[in-house]
Amino acid sequence: MVTINQDLYSRGGIKVAQPKKSRTNVDIYGKSYTIIGEESTSHIRHVTNLVDEKMREIHDVNQSLDTTKLAVLTAVNTMNDYIKLKEEIEVLQSLLEEKED
Amino acid sequence: MVTINQDLYSRGGIKVAQPKKSRTNVDIYGKSYTIIGEESTSHIRHVTNLVDEKMREIHDVNQSLDTTKLAVLTAVNTMNDYIKLKEEIEVLQSLLEEKED
Repeated sequence: MVTINQDLYSRGGIKVAQPKKSRTNVDIYGKSYTIIGEESTSHIRHVTNLVDEKMREIHDVNQSLDTTKLAVLTAVNTMNDYIKLKEEIEVLQSLLEEKED
Repeated sequence: MVTINQDLYSRGGIKVAQPKKSRTNVDIYGKSYTIIGEESTSHIRHVTNLVDEKMREIHDVNQSLDTTKLAVLTAVNTMNDYIKLKEEIEVLQSLLEEKED
């Protein structure tokens, strides 16, 4: 999980062995974020650039939306794409299983 | 694409034949949205419930974030999951191609 400004692993004062994490400063739709994650800095920049692009795309067709609604709608669209891919994966997996029989 | 409060297909005054669209009123993190899309109302509710849950999860570990940052971070996390699935699909597709050879 990509997180921000806080280390999920050190919650509640419990210290556990943790994978090495990167801290990446990015700008998304004009605001600064520090993203902390196990992913590489270049991966995080790739992900956040896609979110920034998607927010701008949605803004272009919904110019009256405030930034919060724009961000929520970006999350909704991305979740929709995610679920579609999940369905696609299920189809591919059953095709593979058929081939293996 | 799921959209909100506006019909993407009627941009710029050009009218084209369009699939039947549903309008679904949902609440996400305490705000109301009208989601317009080709997807069924139940699919849209499923997607928006997942976004709402994810926002609450991230809020639980980052209680100081304002709603905009929370929504952006939700989009970032979902995009990260999406990209990982995309990579998984590529692996499955090449496995399938190998089997077909």
